[in-house]
Amino acid sequence: MIDGTSLSLADAEPQLRADAVRNRALLLEAAARLAARRGAAAITMESVAAEAGVGKGTVSRRFGDRNGLIRALLDRSESQFQEAFLSGPPPLGPEADAATRLRAFGPALLRHEHADLELYLAAEPSPSRRFAVPARQLRHRHVAVLVRALLPAADAELLAHTLLASVDVVLTDHLVRGHGMPLARVEAGWHDLLDRLLT
Amino acid sequence: MIDGTSLSLADAEPQLRADAVRNRALLLEAAARLAARRGAAAITMESVAAEAGVGKGTVSRRFGDRNGLIRALLDRSESQFQEAFLSGPPPLGPEADAATRLRAFGPALLRHEHADLELYLAAEPSPSRRFAVPARQLRHRHVAVLVRALLPAADAELLAHTLLASVDVVLTDHLVRGHGMPLARVEAGWHDLLDRLLT
Repeated sequence: MIDGTSLSLADAEPQLRADAVRNRALLLEAAARLAARRGAAAITMESVAAEAGVGKGTVSRRFGDRNGLIRALLDRSESQFQEAFLSGPPPLGPEADAATRLRAFGPALLRHEHADLELYLAAEPSPSRRFAVPARQLRHRHVAVLVRALLPAADAELLAHTLLASVDVVLTDHLVRGHGMPLARVEAGWHDLLDRLLT
Repeated sequence: MIDGTSLSLADAEPQLRADAVRNRALLLEAAARLAARRGAAAITMESVAAEAGVGKGTVSRRFGDRNGLIRALLDRSESQFQEAFLSGPPPLGPEADAATRLRAFGPALLRHEHADLELYLAAEPSPSRRFAVPARQLRHRHVAVLVRALLPAADAELLAHTLLASVDVVLTDHLVRGHGMPLARVEAGWHDLLDRLLT
């Protein structure tokens, strides 16, 4: 949350009426039950409608398409992660110094995304939308602020993109599941990269 | 080319008979004419079949789908780029030292991909295939070899992924066309990143 506005993985939507909010929550609960029971692949507009006991049109009207549904499902854990790095305790949160926060951010992001790996991969936006997702833009702004504090002469905007790309969920899944690289090695790579950049 | 085997953007395909090779070339010429005249968006299986005066089934049998067709279309310029960094003159080629070659590689890659930007964006593979494209794996191997020569203690495999991600075509298009960042600033970012890593 920033100024009371959650920076969502899904696109912003207008204020919902109370019954719409309740229906939305029921659909998301149904989707979460399905994902827990049968994995992210089992989440379709049809299966969620059936699980919630509503018509497919109700799910479509609320979430647009499968991608919108999955992003909405990820929003809660994304909000917790945002709270952790924006206002949580050290080493992620604002009481720690910039170098400590930046060092902690990569492994925290890796663990956060790999805990919901199937959902994050299923929700991976199209190339044209990849860098326009609000939650991704918030991560970038956060990392750029820390980089600017630590390396005032650097191009913080570009360097923040590079740092985030080094722990991108599609890349790290390719390395971890595709090539058997331990996630700990990717975390060590983040620290090594920062050590080289910051000294 | 490595050992006479071109490392293609498209998946490897078995040896073609002479007439199949000729038909393939005719279809690619038709697609290139369409792209030159009306842009990458105009390339569809139907429009290429019409331009070449054949049935849509002929195009499908040869290239599978639109993505396969566009990758095949990009293969020629990709081969030229590969030749430049594997065996071309300095600063990209093997007569230059590793630091010079690595410094030159980023801007060369940026210019190469931005010269065929629409085609590269149209051919962007799905998340599950993004890191499995042979041409991308060749770039990674090349950068990792140079990083290993320059920073023997570093995790060259991860660092090579990070360097390539910093000049990824989807990211840089987002920055250049989406945010009006000059391509020269992205090139300077590559040099700045290397300066920080190598010193």
